[in-house]
Amino acid sequence: MKKILTVFLLLFSQISLPAQNRENFIQYVNPLIGTEKMGHTYPGATVPFGAVQLSPDTDEQPHNVGGKYNKDAYRYCAGYNFDDREIVGFSHTHFSGTGHSDLGDFLLMPTVGPLQLEPGAKGDPRSGFRSAFSHETEVAEPDYYKVLLEDDRIMAELTTTARVGFHQYTFPASDDAHIVLDLMHGIYNYDDKNVWTFVRVENDRTVVGYRQTNGWARTRTVYFAMEFSKPFAGYGFKNYEKQDYKGFWRKFDQTKNFPEAAGKQLRAHFDFKTAKDEKIKVKFALSPVSTIGALNNLRTETPGWDFDAVKRQGQAAWNKELGKVAVTMESKADLVNFYTAMYHAFISPTVYMDTDGQYKGLDQNVHEARGFTNYTTFSLWDTYRALHPFFNLVQPQRNRDMISSMLAHYDQSVHKMLPVWSHYANENWCMIGYHSVSVISEAIVTGELRGVDANRALDAMTRTARTGYYDGLEYYMRLGYVPEDKNSSSVSKTLEYAYDDWAIAQAAKKLNRRDVYDEFIRRSENWKNVFDPASGFTRPKMTDGRFAEKFDPLKTEGQGFIEGNSWNYSLYVPHRPDELIALMGGPEKFAAHLDELFTMNLPDSFFAETEDITRDGIIGGYVHGNEPSHHVAYLYNFAGAPAKTQERVRMILKHQYHPTPDGLGGNDDCGQMSAWYLFTALGFYPVAPASGEYQLGSPAVKTARLTLENGRVLTIEARNQSERNVYVKQVLLNGREIRRTSLTHAELTAGGRLTFVMSDKF
Amino acid sequence: MKKILTVFLLLFSQISLPAQNRENFIQYVNPLIGTEKMGHTYPGATVPFGAVQLSPDTDEQPHNVGGKYNKDAYRYCAGYNFDDREIVGFSHTHFSGTGHSDLGDFLLMPTVGPLQLEPGAKGDPRSGFRSAFSHETEVAEPDYYKVLLEDDRIMAELTTTARVGFHQYTFPASDDAHIVLDLMHGIYNYDDKNVWTFVRVENDRTVVGYRQTNGWARTRTVYFAMEFSKPFAGYGFKNYEKQDYKGFWRKFDQTKNFPEAAGKQLRAHFDFKTAKDEKIKVKFALSPVSTIGALNNLRTETPGWDFDAVKRQGQAAWNKELGKVAVTMESKADLVNFYTAMYHAFISPTVYMDTDGQYKGLDQNVHEARGFTNYTTFSLWDTYRALHPFFNLVQPQRNRDMISSMLAHYDQSVHKMLPVWSHYANENWCMIGYHSVSVISEAIVTGELRGVDANRALDAMTRTARTGYYDGLEYYMRLGYVPEDKNSSSVSKTLEYAYDDWAIAQAAKKLNRRDVYDEFIRRSENWKNVFDPASGFTRPKMTDGRFAEKFDPLKTEGQGFIEGNSWNYSLYVPHRPDELIALMGGPEKFAAHLDELFTMNLPDSFFAETEDITRDGIIGGYVHGNEPSHHVAYLYNFAGAPAKTQERVRMILKHQYHPTPDGLGGNDDCGQMSAWYLFTALGFYPVAPASGEYQLGSPAVKTARLTLENGRVLTIEARNQSERNVYVKQVLLNGREIRRTSLTHAELTAGGRLTFVMSDKF
Repeated sequence: MKKILTVFLLLFSQISLPAQNRENFIQYVNPLIGTEKMGHTYPGATVPFGAVQLSPDTDEQPHNVGGKYNKDAYRYCAGYNFDDREIVGFSHTHFSGTGHSDLGDFLLMPTVGPLQLEPGAKGDPRSGFRSAFSHETEVAEPDYYKVLLEDDRIMAELTTTARVGFHQYTFPASDDAHIVLDLMHGIYNYDDKNVWTFVRVENDRTVVGYRQTNGWARTRTVYFAMEFSKPFAGYGFKNYEKQDYKGFWRKFDQTKNFPEAAGKQLRAHFDFKTAKDEKIKVKFALSPVSTIGALNNLRTETPGWDFDAVKRQGQAAWNKELGKVAVTMESKADLVNFYTAMYHAFISPTVYMDTDGQYKGLDQNVHEARGFTNYTTFSLWDTYRALHPFFNLVQPQRNRDMISSMLAHYDQSVHKMLPVWSHYANENWCMIGYHSVSVISEAIVTGELRGVDANRALDAMTRTARTGYYDGLEYYMRLGYVPEDKNSSSVSKTLEYAYDDWAIAQAAKKLNRRDVYDEFIRRSENWKNVFDPASGFTRPKMTDGRFAEKFDPLKTEGQGFIEGNSWNYSLYVPHRPDELIALMGGPEKFAAHLDELFTMNLPDSFFAETEDITRDGIIGGYVHGNEPSHHVAYLYNFAGAPAKTQERVRMILKHQYHPTPDGLGGNDDCGQMSAWYLFTALGFYPVAPASGEYQLGSPAVKTARLTLENGRVLTIEARNQSERNVYVKQVLLNGREIRRTSLTHAELTAGGRLTFVMSDKF
Repeated sequence: MKKILTVFLLLFSQISLPAQNRENFIQYVNPLIGTEKMGHTYPGATVPFGAVQLSPDTDEQPHNVGGKYNKDAYRYCAGYNFDDREIVGFSHTHFSGTGHSDLGDFLLMPTVGPLQLEPGAKGDPRSGFRSAFSHETEVAEPDYYKVLLEDDRIMAELTTTARVGFHQYTFPASDDAHIVLDLMHGIYNYDDKNVWTFVRVENDRTVVGYRQTNGWARTRTVYFAMEFSKPFAGYGFKNYEKQDYKGFWRKFDQTKNFPEAAGKQLRAHFDFKTAKDEKIKVKFALSPVSTIGALNNLRTETPGWDFDAVKRQGQAAWNKELGKVAVTMESKADLVNFYTAMYHAFISPTVYMDTDGQYKGLDQNVHEARGFTNYTTFSLWDTYRALHPFFNLVQPQRNRDMISSMLAHYDQSVHKMLPVWSHYANENWCMIGYHSVSVISEAIVTGELRGVDANRALDAMTRTARTGYYDGLEYYMRLGYVPEDKNSSSVSKTLEYAYDDWAIAQAAKKLNRRDVYDEFIRRSENWKNVFDPASGFTRPKMTDGRFAEKFDPLKTEGQGFIEGNSWNYSLYVPHRPDELIALMGGPEKFAAHLDELFTMNLPDSFFAETEDITRDGIIGGYVHGNEPSHHVAYLYNFAGAPAKTQERVRMILKHQYHPTPDGLGGNDDCGQMSAWYLFTALGFYPVAPASGEYQLGSPAVKTARLTLENGRVLTIEARNQSERNVYVKQVLLNGREIRRTSLTHAELTAGGRLTFVMSDKF
């Protein structure tokens, strides 16, 4: 409780930013939300969809040690944990909200006094370059982070452009000041994670190099160029690697002012003399292509040394993006939830190309993005549900570019598959399904894929969905389901393939590709093959056609599911809720079934075996902290009980999102949890994205003004809005009553006024 | 002796090639020369200066094991040892004649029967994919190699273009034929040598990938694209690495028909059914840049599948190059020595860029070679002596391109240094000196550096020579010598720096850069600082100015020298032999001193501690197998005893070069040993290359016709030539008697007729 109070104080200190500008949306963003417990967000600086995420890392837990998984690593997916009291340094790449991790490239840390080139031990900041810090001195805003490094009384400030991290360190007077560059540091590190690293001191202000790693991305290389605002007086390297072969480089003393080092375990330091309160600034540019690319990025994006100007520019970019949905809500806390969600939704996917359009492709060759911006970090199992639909509504141009990036991935894929979970020119194969197809289909069905060859996209979708060796697909195509004895998590896969296939069919219909439609609409019915009428749940089936004998619909592990049990996953037929309801005994029984889900008491054993979420992420047996149930509260609509949808979604908004560091009940998952909030707060949600329809819920905003890219404005108004008035008595679109429980994308993007008349009774 | 006879038989079988073409020079080339003992040449296929050197490797001795040097590796610097009876496979990159090593990329091996994916143990060919072979079935010609792999009765044939290795395997009938691709294989391998490797099966005939290694080149990446003449029926990978982290790739069975693999220790196999005598061909292209670059190279250089046409084209290229110096000699054995030397001289440096001009630079960025062909593999400590001078005479355009490549290296060097020993976008720092400057200076002084900015080149030379942290240079600049207590091999370094500085001064003189001339002509006298009048030898000096106390002019190790003792190295003042002779007591004493060198009896201990040469590489105390003495026999000229030069050089030609596998007394060192042969056989030698002069010796040719690039022809005639007639009574240039012991580059390149009148008496 004390913690929450502290944060509220921080929060309000942020809110006291210059408020004369009515369009100051960034005042409502608190990047610390989600940095405690399961949110896995980071508090540092980034611009919308920026390639650089410059953020403090508070510990260095390795992903595994000697091949064994280290459970403590999980809390450091984003490098920062709110509970920690020390900062190890500031690194340039971070995932936002993921449940597996990587990155943490190029840690910088300013120090004073005798050189400490190792981070030291947790809990003992004096033992290394890590420093104690306190949340009291910490400021986290969009594209700005500030903290006092207490050990050496150095004030650290961070801001960024798309491709450049900009550091400003205010030093005490010292003859012995250092900035450490740690290439060994990383997130989800392990002994062999660094494949190779390289550093070159070009002159007494400029350093370039790269880090090549093996991990979640099988081979990932990030190039950098850094520039100091003043020349360093000296520098040195230490190679921490036990080297079998040093070659004739042994001729040189590479530890002192020798301008080039390479190896697997390098740290470097740059030494300065500083006057009291002297600011040393560092511009640190990244490139996916080369050190020349990084230098070009640095010079193009940050030609000068004005830290405040770069910060102003970054915050203006955030204001512009956040302003696309201008809302009023009941309380400031609500606004903080809303705009922090929007902030988290607009962090990834991230730009992945140099300013000249060059990027590294999935085939490990350098390509040029022609006519689109190339993006990476596609957490598609999560983000096809609400994040990409949200982009499709308020960021359709970026969503098109993301689809073009997926199609480039497809072209460069040896499998000829669209991305599953991709980052940094790598397919990491995390999670299941081929949900790119949903993202693309939605854009096709809603007419938003302008300028992209939709038939080429459809071919990519079908070829992806026919890749036999991918995750049980061969069996799925032959038997109509994934057999659990051949491929685990078989029910989850069957259900999600079926939805994805339906998405392909919708695109095919739109494009008059009858052959494709027929094939995939047939496949989309495969979910029925894992529905067990006897138990009323979906249930793992074996190759011989029999259901698995041992079956517990509350359990996940080894039960045919992934990140969700049968109670939750059995409801995953977003494309045919009508048929699901019929199979489950009709609307009334179905609604009662949902009620049971939302109100049941779970045994303790459930929490012991469920990944990625805390008790906070659960309501009854409904798991909001993982994605498979994200559409579930909206299913009441299909059972003739929209009031239940309205009630539940308001409850979820209230219980699952708090304006505190521990305010997220599960991983934000690159913005999916946040996008759920945004849609739901606005009063509608894309249950089956490729339908081009949104199910109506209960808005949490009082008003919203969506400025659309087509030049139209959609105004949402919730009359009689209040915390108690969660029921929607009437919906009007441009004054005409809507009697459906859904609206189409076309209706919303036509602009106009959407009015919800709220009440405390249904 | 038996061995030598066998080889002679082989040799004559080669000579029985179609001889109707009078210009068939390749008939005299025996690529097996130097493949036994210390030559370190390879017998496989390559075109002149080709980027691909496709050659059999007969064993896989690692460079070191657990950090300890493995002495057996040394014999495998070029992958092949004539004494071996097994072939492990055919790899695509090999150094020719080096005394340290690297490369051996991408070993292919055809097999039949149950898959063997490991090479097996030496001496037990049935234990793995290695195969027994015999020299009886082996044919080695320029750009063509053929051998019967006896284990499976597969006939292997190899040829190449500049960037593509072309394999032709004639199989027996089999349902179970394989071609293994081994990415673990390499030359001078060790446990961590592979930094990363990657393979992608694009379709059932095309495979691409890369190999990134750490070794002599600190980080070297070679990309490949291979194409089979018929589709493979199946394929698979094995990863031999103990992996700490496999990521979600563990979802896939990557061992069977899964199209992508990456890691540090990979082998792949491609499976076929073959009819009796069916030929499966493989085109294997390399690129320094990318897999796309490799594919482009493959398609540009080898559009078709006609193995014989590619071979004819490669052999025609060799005939053209060898024909630039058309000689007649006393015997066919002499011709074999001569043209094999010329063949070895025209192997490296090797082309290092894609067909579109792209290459990887020393800064690890991709660059485009504009207006020149980029080369790599500069063994400059060796090759500045005679190989580059030979190029400067008969390959000036290539030598210009090599100099442009050195200048590109300089531009991309963080040190701003010209190459010392460079290969594959890496400076490996092997050996001593900065002998690029001699190569460049010679080209400037002789007027051959047309089209290259000579002042830019001079700046590169001076900046290189002023790099204080390089190998004792700071002391050398301050004290006038390298002090042995600060930097070992100090005398060798001092002597060579002094010559290099003199070379810089010569270029500066030519370019009217008086300031540079003054600085470097002064430095060029530094050799005197290590000459010890008391002993009459150069001798290591300490920082305090005193000579080292313990001193044995016969020893090398720890005595201030490298690859040569003081007896040999003390004569290394190629730029001022007059001053050296004066210091050593005048011409007569000096000539007697040389006589003693050539006739002394060395103690056994000498051989135990001398690297890179056998007893065969030594005449008296004169070491021809290492380079520091290569000019020594010509020093008699300066002591008024040219007859002694004539006598000695003919003796060296006779004793140090044999048309047999063990025919080279030391490492061929990228062609330096061979270039010594070529110059000497033609009757002159560049004692101080940057002088633009050649010292006259005693030609071994009867006639020679040098077709120069300037369109002129230089005809050399040795009247009364015979084995006994080693003395030159008279030299005529275009009929006018030459009374000097030297000729200038301008005199030779003016064309005309150079006549030596030979005699058995002086």
